[in-house]
Amino acid sequence: MKIKLINPNTTWSMTKSIEEAAKKYASDDVTVFAVSPQMGPTSIESYYDDYLAIPGTLDEIRKGDEEEGCDGYVIACFGDPGLHAARELTDKPVVGIAEAATFMASMLARRFSVVTVLDRSRCLIEDVVNSYVPGGKIASVRTTGWAVLAFEQNPEEGLAALAQESRRAVAEDGAEAILLGCAGFADFAQDLERQLGVPVLDGVAAATKFVELLVRMNKTTSKVLTYARPEQKSMTGILSSFSVETTKV
Amino acid sequence: MKIKLINPNTTWSMTKSIEEAAKKYASDDVTVFAVSPQMGPTSIESYYDDYLAIPGTLDEIRKGDEEEGCDGYVIACFGDPGLHAARELTDKPVVGIAEAATFMASMLARRFSVVTVLDRSRCLIEDVVNSYVPGGKIASVRTTGWAVLAFEQNPEEGLAALAQESRRAVAEDGAEAILLGCAGFADFAQDLERQLGVPVLDGVAAATKFVELLVRMNKTTSKVLTYARPEQKSMTGILSSFSVETTKV
Amino acid sequence: MKIKLINPNTTWSMTKSIEEAAKKYASDDVTVFAVSPQMGPTSIESYYDDYLAIPGTLDEIRKGDEEEGCDGYVIACFGDPGLHAARELTDKPVVGIAEAATFMASMLARRFSVVTVLDRSRCLIEDVVNSYVPGGKIASVRTTGWAVLAFEQNPEEGLAALAQESRRAVAEDGAEAILLGCAGFADFAQDLERQLGVPVLDGVAAATKFVELLVRMNKTTSKVLTYARPEQKSMTGILSSFSVETTKV
Amino acid sequence: MKIKLINPNTTWSMTKSIEEAAKKYASDDVTVFAVSPQMGPTSIESYYDDYLAIPGTLDEIRKGDEEEGCDGYVIACFGDPGLHAARELTDKPVVGIAEAATFMASMLARRFSVVTVLDRSRCLIEDVVNSYVPGGKIASVRTTGWAVLAFEQNPEEGLAALAQESRRAVAEDGAEAILLGCAGFADFAQDLERQLGVPVLDGVAAATKFVELLVRMNKTTSKVLTYARPEQKSMTGILSSFSVETTKV
Amino acid sequence: MKIKLINPNTTWSMTKSIEEAAKKYASDDVTVFAVSPQMGPTSIESYYDDYLAIPGTLDEIRKGDEEEGCDGYVIACFGDPGLHAARELTDKPVVGIAEAATFMASMLARRFSVVTVLDRSRCLIEDVVNSYVPGGKIASVRTTGWAVLAFEQNPEEGLAALAQESRRAVAEDGAEAILLGCAGFADFAQDLERQLGVPVLDGVAAATKFVELLVRMNKTTSKVLTYARPEQKSMTGILSSFSVETTKV
Amino acid sequence: MKIKLINPNTTWSMTKSIEEAAKKYASDDVTVFAVSPQMGPTSIESYYDDYLAIPGTLDEIRKGDEEEGCDGYVIACFGDPGLHAARELTDKPVVGIAEAATFMASMLARRFSVVTVLDRSRCLIEDVVNSYVPGGKIASVRTTGWAVLAFEQNPEEGLAALAQESRRAVAEDGAEAILLGCAGFADFAQDLERQLGVPVLDGVAAATKFVELLVRMNKTTSKVLTYARPEQKSMTGILSSFSVETTKV
Repeated sequence: MKIKLINPNTTWSMTKSIEEAAKKYASDDVTVFAVSPQMGPTSIESYYDDYLAIPGTLDEIRKGDEEEGCDGYVIACFGDPGLHAARELTDKPVVGIAEAATFMASMLARRFSVVTVLDRSRCLIEDVVNSYVPGGKIASVRTTGWAVLAFEQNPEEGLAALAQESRRAVAEDGAEAILLGCAGFADFAQDLERQLGVPVLDGVAAATKFVELLVRMNKTTSKVLTYARPEQKSMTGILSSFSVETTKV
Repeated sequence: MKIKLINPNTTWSMTKSIEEAAKKYASDDVTVFAVSPQMGPTSIESYYDDYLAIPGTLDEIRKGDEEEGCDGYVIACFGDPGLHAARELTDKPVVGIAEAATFMASMLARRFSVVTVLDRSRCLIEDVVNSYVPGGKIASVRTTGWAVLAFEQNPEEGLAALAQESRRAVAEDGAEAILLGCAGFADFAQDLERQLGVPVLDGVAAATKFVELLVRMNKTTSKVLTYARPEQKSMTGILSSFSVETTKV
Repeated sequence: MKIKLINPNTTWSMTKSIEEAAKKYASDDVTVFAVSPQMGPTSIESYYDDYLAIPGTLDEIRKGDEEEGCDGYVIACFGDPGLHAARELTDKPVVGIAEAATFMASMLARRFSVVTVLDRSRCLIEDVVNSYVPGGKIASVRTTGWAVLAFEQNPEEGLAALAQESRRAVAEDGAEAILLGCAGFADFAQDLERQLGVPVLDGVAAATKFVELLVRMNKTTSKVLTYARPEQKSMTGILSSFSVETTKV
Repeated sequence: MKIKLINPNTTWSMTKSIEEAAKKYASDDVTVFAVSPQMGPTSIESYYDDYLAIPGTLDEIRKGDEEEGCDGYVIACFGDPGLHAARELTDKPVVGIAEAATFMASMLARRFSVVTVLDRSRCLIEDVVNSYVPGGKIASVRTTGWAVLAFEQNPEEGLAALAQESRRAVAEDGAEAILLGCAGFADFAQDLERQLGVPVLDGVAAATKFVELLVRMNKTTSKVLTYARPEQKSMTGILSSFSVETTKV
Repeated sequence: MKIKLINPNTTWSMTKSIEEAAKKYASDDVTVFAVSPQMGPTSIESYYDDYLAIPGTLDEIRKGDEEEGCDGYVIACFGDPGLHAARELTDKPVVGIAEAATFMASMLARRFSVVTVLDRSRCLIEDVVNSYVPGGKIASVRTTGWAVLAFEQNPEEGLAALAQESRRAVAEDGAEAILLGCAGFADFAQDLERQLGVPVLDGVAAATKFVELLVRMNKTTSKVLTYARPEQKSMTGILSSFSVETTKV
Repeated sequence: MKIKLINPNTTWSMTKSIEEAAKKYASDDVTVFAVSPQMGPTSIESYYDDYLAIPGTLDEIRKGDEEEGCDGYVIACFGDPGLHAARELTDKPVVGIAEAATFMASMLARRFSVVTVLDRSRCLIEDVVNSYVPGGKIASVRTTGWAVLAFEQNPEEGLAALAQESRRAVAEDGAEAILLGCAGFADFAQDLERQLGVPVLDGVAAATKFVELLVRMNKTTSKVLTYARPEQKSMTGILSSFSVETTKV
C-alpha cells in the first residue's frame, strides 16, 4: 500500500519532518512518502495562502493517481485546503489532518482545544473544525503568535510556547485534549503529551493511519453526487494542465 | 493486541456474526473477540433496552481491563449505549459503532443516511449521530419496520428491505453513503455496497479498526475531566459488584 | 393523587430531604413519597453513576405502576437519568428535575446558570439542559468542586459555596436565575433565593408540581412512536426481572 | 389566587371560550377571568395584528397589577405577543400559551406538530416555538388555511379541518403530540385528543395551570437584568397612558 | 426618490441628528426625511419601549404610503421594532438599522461586536443580530451602562465611553468591526472609526443606502406569504385608526 | 468610481453578459467592467472548478489594485470563490454574488430558495448561503440538472427550466423569493420575476450595487485580524507571480 502525504506548502524541510512523523506510525507494508507541490506558498497562514496551495495540492493528487499508483492521500495542513476537490478528483480515500485530529480527539475526550500559530487564523480554524463536529466540542482555539516557519527555526522555544498555551487551554478553558493546529508541529506531539498529561493529537499521524485503515477496508470516496469526478472542462493559462479531458467514472 | 467487542445484547448468534465481521478486518497480530454481557436484553430497540444494556456492557469493560488484558473496546450497538461511562472506567480506547460509522462516512461522503430497524428508534438514532457531527450531515434516517432479530431469521428478505430503503435514501434524500443502523447488519455490508454503488458503512468493522489504530498509536482516553475514573463509591443491591473500590488514576 | 419521587441514588437521608422538599409544595390532596432504588450508586457524579442508577430507577417506575398505583413520577437527579426509558415504561407523566427547573427558569428569566458539584459534570449538565432549551439560554454552569454527599455533611459551608458561585454567575455571567444542579440542594433553595435576589429553582419542587399539574389535566405520555411501551423481550442475568413479558398498550 | 387571562384580540366571544377553558382546569381556590384589551385587532393573523395587540395586552397587565390585585397572567394567543414586555411590567408570573403548550408537549412527547390557521403564520409560529425549545422538537407546522374567526363560525367543519391536518402530522411527519396553534381552538382539545390518540395540547389550559403553579410556589419574574421594570419614561400621543412614571423595584 | 426614516422614539432632537446622518450619505436625487411617530416612548431601552414604539412606527409607514408618496423606509432603532409588520403593510422596501449594520459589517469583517447602552438590552440585541446572521459572527455585545438620552446630553463623554468599550471589544473579544447599537450614535461613527482603526458601522447611514439601492433596482417586498398585506380587520379603541379596511394587493 | 467584476470562469461570452447586467444598474458616475481571469476553468460546477478559479480571481484583484485603480470588486460566481482571500489582498470592498443575493433576499422575504445548475452543487450552495444567514432562511435549493454553459446555448429552454423549478419552490417549499444560483442567469432575472410574482434576485446586480454603496460610504475591509494583508511570502512554480513581496498595511 502506498500513501502519499501532501504538504500543501513548499518548505521541504517541513515536508521531511511530516514524512518522518507519518513513517513512525505507518505499518510495515505501507509505503508513505511526503511531497510539497511544485507550486504554491512556502507556508500557510492566511486564506490567501490556503487557496493558493490548492492547485499544487490537487496536482499531486492527480500525479498520485496517474503516475505513482497511490492508494490514498493525506492533506497535511491544518486548514485541510482543497479537501473537497481532492475527493472529486480521485476515488481513493483522502483525509485532511484537521479532520483526522478532530475525529480522533472526539474518540478520546469530551472537549478539546486547538493550539496554533497566528491570531489571524483563529476563525479559519474554528470554521474547519466546526465543519466536522458539533460546535460544543471546541473548548478554545489558542494562538502563540508565532509564524509557521518560526517553529522550524526555534523548535525549543516553539515547544515552550505551545506548552504554555496548551496548559492554559486545559486549566482555564476546560480542554481535555490538545489538537496541534499546524502540520509542522508533528515533532512536538510526544513531548507535549508527556508534559501535559492529556492526549495531544497530531493530525499527520492520525490522518496517515485513517487513510491506511480506509484502504485496507477497500473503502472509496462516494462518487454519486457531491464528490463525483469533476466535469469535463478546459482550464486556461498557467493552469491549463488542470483541464479535465475525459469524464471517467 | 487484544480488542474486545461488546455486543450489548445477549443474543449470542448475533455476537458471533459481529465477531466474524471484526475478524474479517482485524490485522493478523490483533486478537479480536466478541461477547455478550451476562445480563441485559436480547435485543435493543428502545431507550429501555438501551439503558438496561449498559450495566452488562460496563461489566465487560471492567472484566476486559482486570481479567482479560484487553487493549481496547468496541461497543457494538448503533445507539452506542454506555459509551461515555465506558470511557470513564478505562483509559483504553473505547469506540462506539455509531460513532465509528459516522466518522468514517464523513471521510467518504458529504451526506449520508442511516437505515435501521423500527420507527421508534428514529429520534434516538438522530440524536446519537448528531452528537458526533454537525446536523446537516444526515440526509435521512430510514426504517424498515423490521425488529432486530427478524433480520437474523430472514436474512434474505432483510437484505432486500435494507436495499430498498437505502436506494430511496440515495435517490430521494440525497444520501451519498449508507450507515447500517444496527450491529446485526454487519453481514449485509458488502452485498449492499455492491448493489448500491455507494459506500455502505458497517460500524462494527469501522470501530474495530479505529480501536486497533488508537492502540497502535498509544492513544488513551483523556482522564483529566469528564472521563476521569468514576469516584470511589458503593453500589447496592444486585448492582453491588459495580462498586468503585479505590480511586485509581 | 399519588406522586412518587425517585431519588436515583441510594442515600436515604438525601431521599428524605427530597421528600420533604416535595411535600412542602404538594397540594393537600396529593400524596407524595420519595424512594431510593433497591440497587445503584450512593451518589451520582459521573456518567458511570448516572447509567448505573437507571435500572433501579426504572424498577421503581414499574413498581409504582404495578404495585403502588402511582399517578405520576419525578426523577430526582439533575442529570434526569433514564427519563426517556421511564416514559416508555408507563403512560403516567414522568418529569425530570433538570427538565422541570429548566422550563420553570425559562418562564421567569431570560438566561440562567446552573450551580453544581464537581467539574467533571459540567459537560453532562450542559448536554441535558441543552436538550430541553435552545443553547443561548445557559449563561454558565458553575461548579463548587464539592462532592454530592459533602453537602449533606457540611450544609452550612455547602450553602456558602453555592452562594458564592451563584453570585458570580449573576455578576459575571449575566445569569438572571439560578438552577440548583443537584437534588440534594433542595433545602438550600429558599435561603439562596433570599440572599441572591434572583429566582433560585429547585427542580424537585418544580418537577413535583409539574407532575401534579399533568395528572390533574389527565395528560399522559404519547405512546404512538418514540415512547411506545418497550417491545416484548427477555432480559438475562441479574436483570432478568426487567424482562418485558407482554406488550400492553 | 387570581389569574387573569388576556386574549390579545378583541373578539369577546373567543375571550369567553378562553375563560371557560381555563375555568375547567383552574383549582377551586383560584379565580380565573379572561378579558380582551380595550384596543387592538379582532383577531391575530399577521405580525401587524400581533404587534398591535401588544399595547392593549400590556395595559391589561398594568390594570391587573394596579387595580385588580392579580397574582399572575396568561397571554392567550399562540404568538405570545408582548410576553417579554409583560415580564418587565410586573414581577408576577406571566406565561404565554405557545410557551406553555411547547413545554408541556416536551414533557409528554419527543416531537410534536403545531396545527394552525393561515399559511402566512407558519414562520411566525416556527420562530416562537424555536425560541423555547431546540429546533429538532418541531415535526411540522401544518395550516388549515382557515381564518381565526372562521373556526368560531363553523366549529364542526373547523374541528374536521384540524383533525385532518393533525392526522397527517402524526402519519407523515412523525408528530407524537399536537399543539393547538390558536387560543380559539381550546374547545376542540378534548375531542381531538380522543380522535387522534395522541396528546393534544391546548396552551390556554396549560398556561393557566403553569401560572397557578408558579404563584403557589411564590415564584416571581427575575428583575435583575433583562426583565427589570421599564425605565422611567414618557409616552406621547394616544399612548400617553403607557408612560412609566416612577421607577419601582 | 423619497426615503422616510422613522425614529421609533419621540425625541425629535435625536430624529434631527438621524436625518442629518442620512442626508450626509443620500444621493443628490434622493429626498430623505426623518420623523418621530405621533405616539410612543421618548427613548427605547426595554422590550416595553420597543413594542410601544411599533404602533407609531407603523402609522408612519401607512402615512408614508398613503399621503407622502414615499419609495422606501428605514426603521431607525437598533432593535428594528416592527420590521416584519412594516413589510406586511407596504410593498416598498423597509430596512432596519440593526439589519443594515449587520449585513454591512458581514461584508467588511469576519466578526464584529455591538456597543450599546444599558446592560438590560444585551439579550434583545443578541437576538435581533442572530436573526440576521449565523451565531458565530458576534464577537460580543458590550454595554456602556449609559441611557439613550444621556448620550445626547453628554456627547463627549458618551463618545469616550463608546470608544473604551469598542477598544476592549477589539483587543479582548476579537472584534474586527464595531456596530453602533443605537440610532443616536450616528454622529459618533466617523470619530470612532478614526480612533479605532476598524470599520465602525452606523446602521442609519447603512439602512438609508440599502433602501436607496433597493428602490433603484425596483425591488419590492415579497407579498406571497409571510409579508402579504395584513388581513382585512377592525382595530378597536385608541388604535381604531389602524383598522385594515380593504385587502389591497 | 471604478468597479471591477470578476467572472471567475474564462467564458468571455458569459463575462460580457455579466458586465451588461452590472451596467444596467450601476450609477452614471460609476465605471463597471467585467473580466475573466487569465487562467482557470471555463465554467464552475464542482469544488475542483471553484478552487482552480481562485488564483485567477485573486490575480485580477491584485491587478485591479495595482494597475487599474479600482475602487471595489465583485466576485461573480454563486459559490463566491476566494472571497475571504480577496478581502485579505485589498482593503477595497469585495462582495460575492451569493452573499449579495442572500442579504438582499433577506431584506425582501422571510424565506427563499436558490435555483441552480447541477445536483452536485447543492451542498456547496447550501454551505455558502448558510455561512451568511441563519439556517432557517433557506426554503430549498432546487437544481435544473443543466450545466452552466447549456444555459448560454439554449437560453429559452433554460429560462423555462428555471421557471419550472422556481414555481415549485414557491408552491411546494414555501419560498418567498428566488435566488439565481449562477452568474450566468443574470439575463433571466427580469423575465422570471415577471412570471413568478416574487422577487428574483440576481447576485450580479446586487453585488455591484452593494460595492458601489460601500465605496461611496468610504467603507473598507477590516485589516486588524482575519482579513489582514497576507504575510510576506514566496510562492513557487507557475504561481510565483503570487508571491507577497512586502508587507503593506
